[in-house]
Amino acid sequence: MTAVTPPTSRAAAEALDAADPLAAFIDEFALPPGVIYLNGNSLGPSPKAALARVTQAATEEWSRDLITSWNRAGWFLLPYRLGDKIAGLVGAEAGEVVMTDGTSLNLFRMVATTLAMRPDRKVIVMEGSNFPTNNYVVQGLIETLGRGHEIRFAEKDEIADAITDDVAAVVLTQTHYKTSHILDMAAITARAHAVGALTVWDLCHSAGAMPVDLNGCGADFAVGCTYKYLNGGPGSPAFQFVAKRHQGVVAQPLTGWWGHGAPFAFDRDYAPASGIGRTLTGTQPILSMVAAEAGLDIAERAGLEPSRAKSRAMGALFLSLVEARLGDAGFKLGSPADAEARGGHIALEHPHGYPIMKALISRGVIGDFRAPTTIRFGFSPLYLRYVDIWDAVETLRDIVETGLWKDPAFAAVDAVT
Amino acid sequence: MTAVTPPTSRAAAEALDAADPLAAFIDEFALPPGVIYLNGNSLGPSPKAALARVTQAATEEWSRDLITSWNRAGWFLLPYRLGDKIAGLVGAEAGEVVMTDGTSLNLFRMVATTLAMRPDRKVIVMEGSNFPTNNYVVQGLIETLGRGHEIRFAEKDEIADAITDDVAAVVLTQTHYKTSHILDMAAITARAHAVGALTVWDLCHSAGAMPVDLNGCGADFAVGCTYKYLNGGPGSPAFQFVAKRHQGVVAQPLTGWWGHGAPFAFDRDYAPASGIGRTLTGTQPILSMVAAEAGLDIAERAGLEPSRAKSRAMGALFLSLVEARLGDAGFKLGSPADAEARGGHIALEHPHGYPIMKALISRGVIGDFRAPTTIRFGFSPLYLRYVDIWDAVETLRDIVETGLWKDPAFAAVDAVT
Repeated sequence: MTAVTPPTSRAAAEALDAADPLAAFIDEFALPPGVIYLNGNSLGPSPKAALARVTQAATEEWSRDLITSWNRAGWFLLPYRLGDKIAGLVGAEAGEVVMTDGTSLNLFRMVATTLAMRPDRKVIVMEGSNFPTNNYVVQGLIETLGRGHEIRFAEKDEIADAITDDVAAVVLTQTHYKTSHILDMAAITARAHAVGALTVWDLCHSAGAMPVDLNGCGADFAVGCTYKYLNGGPGSPAFQFVAKRHQGVVAQPLTGWWGHGAPFAFDRDYAPASGIGRTLTGTQPILSMVAAEAGLDIAERAGLEPSRAKSRAMGALFLSLVEARLGDAGFKLGSPADAEARGGHIALEHPHGYPIMKALISRGVIGDFRAPTTIRFGFSPLYLRYVDIWDAVETLRDIVETGLWKDPAFAAVDAVT
Repeated sequence: MTAVTPPTSRAAAEALDAADPLAAFIDEFALPPGVIYLNGNSLGPSPKAALARVTQAATEEWSRDLITSWNRAGWFLLPYRLGDKIAGLVGAEAGEVVMTDGTSLNLFRMVATTLAMRPDRKVIVMEGSNFPTNNYVVQGLIETLGRGHEIRFAEKDEIADAITDDVAAVVLTQTHYKTSHILDMAAITARAHAVGALTVWDLCHSAGAMPVDLNGCGADFAVGCTYKYLNGGPGSPAFQFVAKRHQGVVAQPLTGWWGHGAPFAFDRDYAPASGIGRTLTGTQPILSMVAAEAGLDIAERAGLEPSRAKSRAMGALFLSLVEARLGDAGFKLGSPADAEARGGHIALEHPHGYPIMKALISRGVIGDFRAPTTIRFGFSPLYLRYVDIWDAVETLRDIVETGLWKDPAFAAVDAVT
């Protein structure tokens, strides 16, 4: 980790920016003026190239070239081509990843496959406090199969012991959506394999935020989204990974023509494509898909090691400034104290977290809130400056010191995404 | 049906355009110059308003407003709001349709629900010659369930007899992707209900092309796409319909947080939303979704009765011109001769269909080809003129008379979508 001496002035933060090897990437993003965006862990901002690409796809490929773009513009192969780019960011090989559909649907496919591969085992290990759509997906799958599967919920430190020889699948999110704690993918995968279980890793809060080494860890299956740290745009399609050694046995339930071995033969009966292609189902949302490529390219050019180092440094700076400048304001760390053990965002707990976050947003510092008391701050390294961290903490200090958050305007609860 | 006397000159076709009540809608589409687009049955062209809306969503909602757009721009409610618009086009009520995911995935949900509602029945009736992704979806579902379900394939005239009291679900596409024949939704649904079966109707080649009356026919479930006659853009999300009377019992397998009754409570366990919302799974591709609204609005303003009348008239004109001006060129009708019995496109059969279509495309007349001998021409009423039909047939005549299609450049087979 890059050690950062907390600056004692805005000028000192500016000096950190002057020495930042990733500083130039901010120019590749279209950011609104007056905003410090600490919510890229939820929805990344727009790369300028993404906006240009969407316009090109809409006006040239759809409007002008019409149906011919399925071949000429390569629309039909986007899941593979963009999948290969994602593969390079998560420690996979070309041909092991496709970009398609959404994370929940992809998780359904991957978990269903693991259960089909371990028909005599009925237990699925999951972290119950995780972002709950993963629980919902597996609960729906279990209900649909009706074969007596059960979820064994285990929290972070209980996971290793929960992986016993009745476990079919270990389905975990590497970086926790709320606390930001990182699970040890290598150790847990090894533990799963030692008892004959398979792993499905959810990389939603990891992909683009840090180096991920799926194959180095021996991972079996994985899924993840592209609209957080990969800056793919709102609801940009997700991805799924199947290790090469499992690709011949994948029996995923969502069979459709894009996963057929000869999709344009229009054969009556299904016969799967070889390789990762058999995990596809149907036609993809092209405008959302093409938007995502720019963010993948930026992540690749920036490099995951430098990105992770800067993100850690910004997080450490944030915490040291909160401690130094807010002192007794009642904030407690809701994430691991060790920067190595947490992902790209940091959770703070405060009994008045909700109005405090609303007041912050009213001042242009955008983070988010998770009930009952968590406020989250994401430290995406590609478009944030150290001076933004300084300014964000100063704004937080001002809100607390002036009591701005007590303004009734910030008390009304509305839907928070 | 509007009777059309085949014009004997281009000027006569122009006169038909002058009297066309839908003529002005062509100005709402961004169409490439020099192209006669007879492939809107595969991918509709771009409404100008769709292009503007995508730009707005990308630059204002994503770039400028960032995460706040989930609420402020109504992204989170798009499946419902656009679903209600689709409902008005397919004979459903508000609250019976959501726009989401893709047709194949939606079919998986709907068929799985029917099977759960008829647990003692094992037969699913399908038209085997239909666009085969529907077969593939049901084959994958059957394999996943492992409960001995089987598909009873029946062609058009065999369907009624195939619906016996062991049938759980009748899963049919109303308008056939290749021949364009229309199945009698009311009669088949009544037959299914008479023996206790449920229906899942695929409206991919019907929605936007003709009036559809799901509730008038007593339909149970339906799916369809929005990128053909509804001009939603490449891979724009699909829709699914659940009749109000079934919404309380829907047990769809693809459970996720967008279908949860309290998605932002982040409860550990799944509890479905009431109503159509429980058929949703996860985050939707927003840029592709917003693009689709313009086409829905145009379809609503044009009206389905006038649209269907013009489409039938253009199809009839096309066939009469082919007969009058191409005579013995070897084309055979691959669609029903009765205009009432076919949908928005017409199939011609010709032993040299492939090079003939490639030659047509080289001359700016875009239809498509389906192996082994079918060429398809779509008659979307909103941006085609009668004079386009005249010109298309004249181009076809020229290609046949000059033998242009024999040029080796048109013989090479490449992927055709």
